[in-house]
Amino acid sequence: MAEEKETNKSIEEEEQVVTPWEVASGGGKIDYDKLISKFGCQKLDSNLINRVEKLTSRPPHVFLRRGVFFAHRDFNEILDSYQKGDKFYLYTGRGPSSEALHLGHLIPFMFTKYLQDAFKVPLVIQLTDDEKCMWKNLSVEESKRLARENAKDIIACGFDITRTFIFSDFGYLGGAFYENVVRVARCVSFNQVRGIFGFSPEDHIGKIGFPPVQAVPSFPTSFPHLFSGRDNLRCLIPCAIDQDPYFRMTRDVAPRIGYQKPALIESLFFPALQGESGKMSASDPNSAIYVTDSKNDIKKKINRHAFSGGQDSLENQRKYGANLEVDIPVKYLSFFLEDDAELEHIKKEYGAGRMLTGEVKSRLIEVLTEMVMRHREARSAVTDEMVDAFMAVRPLPGMFD
Amino acid sequence: MAEEKETNKSIEEEEQVVTPWEVASGGGKIDYDKLISKFGCQKLDSNLINRVEKLTSRPPHVFLRRGVFFAHRDFNEILDSYQKGDKFYLYTGRGPSSEALHLGHLIPFMFTKYLQDAFKVPLVIQLTDDEKCMWKNLSVEESKRLARENAKDIIACGFDITRTFIFSDFGYLGGAFYENVVRVARCVSFNQVRGIFGFSPEDHIGKIGFPPVQAVPSFPTSFPHLFSGRDNLRCLIPCAIDQDPYFRMTRDVAPRIGYQKPALIESLFFPALQGESGKMSASDPNSAIYVTDSKNDIKKKINRHAFSGGQDSLENQRKYGANLEVDIPVKYLSFFLEDDAELEHIKKEYGAGRMLTGEVKSRLIEVLTEMVMRHREARSAVTDEMVDAFMAVRPLPGMFD
Repeated sequence: MAEEKETNKSIEEEEQVVTPWEVASGGGKIDYDKLISKFGCQKLDSNLINRVEKLTSRPPHVFLRRGVFFAHRDFNEILDSYQKGDKFYLYTGRGPSSEALHLGHLIPFMFTKYLQDAFKVPLVIQLTDDEKCMWKNLSVEESKRLARENAKDIIACGFDITRTFIFSDFGYLGGAFYENVVRVARCVSFNQVRGIFGFSPEDHIGKIGFPPVQAVPSFPTSFPHLFSGRDNLRCLIPCAIDQDPYFRMTRDVAPRIGYQKPALIESLFFPALQGESGKMSASDPNSAIYVTDSKNDIKKKINRHAFSGGQDSLENQRKYGANLEVDIPVKYLSFFLEDDAELEHIKKEYGAGRMLTGEVKSRLIEVLTEMVMRHREARSAVTDEMVDAFMAVRPLPGMFD
Repeated sequence: MAEEKETNKSIEEEEQVVTPWEVASGGGKIDYDKLISKFGCQKLDSNLINRVEKLTSRPPHVFLRRGVFFAHRDFNEILDSYQKGDKFYLYTGRGPSSEALHLGHLIPFMFTKYLQDAFKVPLVIQLTDDEKCMWKNLSVEESKRLARENAKDIIACGFDITRTFIFSDFGYLGGAFYENVVRVARCVSFNQVRGIFGFSPEDHIGKIGFPPVQAVPSFPTSFPHLFSGRDNLRCLIPCAIDQDPYFRMTRDVAPRIGYQKPALIESLFFPALQGESGKMSASDPNSAIYVTDSKNDIKKKINRHAFSGGQDSLENQRKYGANLEVDIPVKYLSFFLEDDAELEHIKKEYGAGRMLTGEVKSRLIEVLTEMVMRHREARSAVTDEMVDAFMAVRPLPGMFD
């Protein structure tokens, strides 16, 4: 695993731990620059964002403009090829561990929809119901049920059914996909997954054998009904940066089995309401806004739990202004308030003390309520038949049009 | 893994190593009594053989009468249930590591055919092309090709297509079968497979994750097209005793996931031509008789390579007689010469020195030539369409008739 391995061992001493199952900042904020250096990926700079704007003839997504997707691997190569007329395909996914998604879960899907629309490329979405069955000790039946429920939320993000294949591992694994799982598995030792994912000898062999299952959607040959005859089609994976270890492994193995390395475009973690020290936690419903929350839930959660960088008295706020670096309402607005001018105005006024926490929270409640209600309306229109249609193993004839 | 674990640790000191990938006697003959004690299975006694004869209304197979299948787990329970009118199903398999099978490979299939005919029960045959791809570093394509070639030899053993489903892992794994793989995998730790199979941390995760794939054909829910609604149907596995570790693991996990333990009926290893110190080796073509050997090959191999227990001179042979305990021609005849009276006659005369090695070898050449030629004729009649038919995922409507 020479080439893709972590490049800066000294980072580990500071106890910032980021794996697909654990995000611990070691106190304070996640240091994303150190993560880039540790993982060995690249910073997504304005030059690349400008290229995206040019190639797609539309403004770059707010998540690009504001650095939510902040790191990449070989995204420049994807753009080089696209410029020459070569398409690619998108791959993202979700581990269906719970029925309700929170806002952090929606981010990769919102961004992937933008990429699909902007580049007009096909998309595969993996629901790792097998993973969650093994990690969360859910029954197979419950994992499969959650996968279908989550598929409804994903479909509600607006994906184009003529370009999108959604699959769950329990439903799809087999055939050419399983052949690739075996090809990858025999290239990776237990010692290597111990190093990459932190597995231990006490872990069960289901966990130890799982990483290839998340790796192989990176290879077009895993989807013969979609990409037959296009064995060299490149794959771009939008994901949160905690998934990077899977694809570091995948990229190391790919050339050894004759495949192209997938490219990645990676996001920050969406912060918890209580502050930016990690990801949101499913075990604390007050740590996140869920797409199932009512207007009143949203209002209460923001007002009571959103960590404020404002001063503790009106007098001090007017005098010193808010600390925007730690203020969660401002962070959330920077993810979801699309109007750049308004966001700048809020940051300026709030930071200077001319605006109060209550006013900022009030605007955030409006933005999130509108977004959540829109999502729920869209989701309520997603039928079981639509889920079946998105998950049908079928060609996508117009996927490159 | 408390219940099914090895019962006699002291055996290890004597360095008799038997795993699915290694059979080493530690010098001299395999000590099968010690193996029974070490593995914790039971001896197959004459009482059980008599019950088989009674229940099936036919003479017990020569492999039963002569102790080739010598050990079991819960075979008595299978017979108890059968006596009350409850059927079971058979599961056996093969790792398709080479194109040509040798006589040792045929033994479980010959015996399984007898069991299928005698008990009139369905049979599933697993071809672990994924295993051989990973262990032997074969390409996926070559492993799949070998699986189909081996299927032809298996079909040539005479299995009833109305009761037999042959599948390869690359072809069949997925769906309910994969769900069971996950259910088993999450019950077994790396430390446990290290103890059972001797894996090390340097081994690749394909190997480490494989044992559940060989475990789950023991569960009827892995074959919904065959056993839907019969979740409690018991499974009987005829196999060589080196496969016992897989099923020790399977039997330990089964009750924890709500399934019945499979029963086993286990054979000795078929000895190499050079003598009974282990299994035959694919790397030495002169260590075994292959089903592809010509009449002349068979004659030459027996005459030149079959280890004789006869004395080194005619005079000494007449005086001391042959040592039947180490004599390979007699061993082979005891597997394949069906006539009990003739076998007894040969052993008596040869052991007393009234018969010479050449005469015994000559009779063995006749027996094996007839058997191999019969097999080849049967195999040449097996078409690709027949392979497709046996491997089709289909119901077996008359399987319990």
